[in-house]
Amino acid sequence: MSDNGAHGTRGLSKGRVEAFSDGVLAVAITLLVLDLHVTVGKASLAAQLRHDWPTYGAYLISFFYIGVVWVNHHALFSLARRLDRTVVFYNLVLLMFVTTIPFTTSTLAQYLRVGGTDERLAVVLYGVSTEGMAVLFTVILHRFLAHDLMHRPATRAESRAALRRFGVGTLIYPAVTAVGLWSPELMLICYAVLTGFYVREQTPVLPES
Amino acid sequence: MSDNGAHGTRGLSKGRVEAFSDGVLAVAITLLVLDLHVTVGKASLAAQLRHDWPTYGAYLISFFYIGVVWVNHHALFSLARRLDRTVVFYNLVLLMFVTTIPFTTSTLAQYLRVGGTDERLAVVLYGVSTEGMAVLFTVILHRFLAHDLMHRPATRAESRAALRRFGVGTLIYPAVTAVGLWSPELMLICYAVLTGFYVREQTPVLPES
Amino acid sequence: MSDNGAHGTRGLSKGRVEAFSDGVLAVAITLLVLDLHVTVGKASLAAQLRHDWPTYGAYLISFFYIGVVWVNHHALFSLARRLDRTVVFYNLVLLMFVTTIPFTTSTLAQYLRVGGTDERLAVVLYGVSTEGMAVLFTVILHRFLAHDLMHRPATRAESRAALRRFGVGTLIYPAVTAVGLWSPELMLICYAVLTGFYVREQTPVLPES
Amino acid sequence: MSDNGAHGTRGLSKGRVEAFSDGVLAVAITLLVLDLHVTVGKASLAAQLRHDWPTYGAYLISFFYIGVVWVNHHALFSLARRLDRTVVFYNLVLLMFVTTIPFTTSTLAQYLRVGGTDERLAVVLYGVSTEGMAVLFTVILHRFLAHDLMHRPATRAESRAALRRFGVGTLIYPAVTAVGLWSPELMLICYAVLTGFYVREQTPVLPES
Repeated sequence: MSDNGAHGTRGLSKGRVEAFSDGVLAVAITLLVLDLHVTVGKASLAAQLRHDWPTYGAYLISFFYIGVVWVNHHALFSLARRLDRTVVFYNLVLLMFVTTIPFTTSTLAQYLRVGGTDERLAVVLYGVSTEGMAVLFTVILHRFLAHDLMHRPATRAESRAALRRFGVGTLIYPAVTAVGLWSPELMLICYAVLTGFYVREQTPVLPES
Repeated sequence: MSDNGAHGTRGLSKGRVEAFSDGVLAVAITLLVLDLHVTVGKASLAAQLRHDWPTYGAYLISFFYIGVVWVNHHALFSLARRLDRTVVFYNLVLLMFVTTIPFTTSTLAQYLRVGGTDERLAVVLYGVSTEGMAVLFTVILHRFLAHDLMHRPATRAESRAALRRFGVGTLIYPAVTAVGLWSPELMLICYAVLTGFYVREQTPVLPES
Repeated sequence: MSDNGAHGTRGLSKGRVEAFSDGVLAVAITLLVLDLHVTVGKASLAAQLRHDWPTYGAYLISFFYIGVVWVNHHALFSLARRLDRTVVFYNLVLLMFVTTIPFTTSTLAQYLRVGGTDERLAVVLYGVSTEGMAVLFTVILHRFLAHDLMHRPATRAESRAALRRFGVGTLIYPAVTAVGLWSPELMLICYAVLTGFYVREQTPVLPES
Repeated sequence: MSDNGAHGTRGLSKGRVEAFSDGVLAVAITLLVLDLHVTVGKASLAAQLRHDWPTYGAYLISFFYIGVVWVNHHALFSLARRLDRTVVFYNLVLLMFVTTIPFTTSTLAQYLRVGGTDERLAVVLYGVSTEGMAVLFTVILHRFLAHDLMHRPATRAESRAALRRFGVGTLIYPAVTAVGLWSPELMLICYAVLTGFYVREQTPVLPES
């Protein structure tokens, strides 16, 4: 953390913000496993695994969703030369949404077998926690661009293009959630496709200089 | 951690103290989510979420409270040039109070719906865990100032001003707790306002040089 | 993380990938302990410890198994000069298998006392999570070699030798799982021997230059 | 981690070993809190807190015990210039004992109110997990001294003195455990005194050069 000390100034060390964020993301992604469990004697193990498929499906999707959030966090913050207090606050809100994922995942998995209003509410809750992160990423990028926090200043055209790209992200999760109100199973598939796409193919936030 | 090695000396590497503290803070802030859960069949999901609002409210407040502690920890330790064993001990006591937050939060959330002596005791417990951190921050700042552990030595006037500012912090939490004995709901609002204020507006510990 | 920033480029900072992986591995290895618990009044403490021996045995083996994964992860990634998105994706899949270990360990421990089809299925589940990591390690090494991500380019002979060595690893876990279908106790002993061997004796991925 | 890369060699990066150890220690010290909980309606909150005093006492002692382990780990590893595979293996065994502390603490707290053979066995279990770490610290120091892994080679007299000091540590925990067989409450006080002493007063492993 040698280059980030910024002691005695209002600036906040990027290194510690990233380390803390990595910690929260690592704990949240690993806590997901606490939702997986079987009980001897309830039914055959195979029957339990089959019956609880929404739990295992939701586990996989939330794992890779948080993985994508980590990759995005990494890519976004690597653009910043320094952080200000407002970015640190936005980052806390982002991490708050991250830590809700084990809860909304567990709720979704439970109600996926139930149907009706409860199932739709669980779908919306899950959608809120994923959308929250998409919105915060856009807000943080906007702050980077508008307050000269970037390593390399972006042109107006580049800024507009980058924000538009992130803005599209904030429209995807409500759309996927709308799909989920109709078919939660299809929503899970949409999430799987989305995270697969994002992990492997995302273009850089700004074009290579 | 290249610049912090200090091998063979009594000095303790600031980098590892910060990394360990970040780890504890990240785990504690994420463990809060284990208190959120719903159960299929108990009531409608909406009814459960409504009924458990103190749990969700306490979750949010404790999340941002620990977030503020992390920001403060960061700002305070960035002032230090080196740490001594006593600071490391004080830091352990501070982290001990941090790790109690998931317990006092859960206790507060449970008893917020109960009223009477139990509710007031839960309010006091929560107050003790938040006050404990405020006191320890002041103690650590005092140690930094009194034992020449700062990057830039503070003048007597600066030291007095900084300690006074931190000392005021130690009066706020008992006051908020007193409010909570009368109205726990108002206390939650006070905490929300306080953490919002601290995350965004806190002035630097020492004036910019 | 000074040397890894790679801001504005498609490259991903090795430092943060390693830090995130260390975080997930550290949380997963420590969460294993949540499976250990005794209950006052159920039986004498000694009787409970004796009765739950598969839980303690599985705890030890999974602890050192994840320990070996950490050592291997370390050794493998220290060969890389830079990472690409595909490696980061493979690493996420690897970490996904890591986080399943507390679940498959707990399942194995429970069904080890049960016998029959359920026990054999638990053995296979545990085998899948260990084999998954062995396969991913080979896939990541292959990516390093095939896409010029290494500090020191390997000759064709070296590459073939390194991949063969890793490939043998992917054959061991299915073999151990097959043993477990016949005798789960013997499988635990095989895992203990294997992890002991890997922690202490593993040859470097590439010969010393 | 810039100075620790050691890529392509058999040496293991000290930075990642320390980061992984910090992670395990931070998770283990924070997981202790999962043992604290109260239940609305069982008894008054005050009565529950009073009744469960062994849980809170054991929590505090184990928290500071792990804190001391972290301080010692830090002091010990700061002496090393490089690590070999054997040290990494010893470190894994040390961390294994660390992760058992939440289990042995919980067991001790439960059986402290029970008395008889069960209570004595819980005392011994706790003693084993603390003694395990004391032994491993001595073993690691011996490895550092015997295999030239130190920044500054120690003289024979220094080595003997350092090992004797650590060796005394391995005698203390069995003695405290023996006290606990007679009076567990007195044992808790001994642990409290010991950890207080170790955090604040421990002399450096080697004399200042």
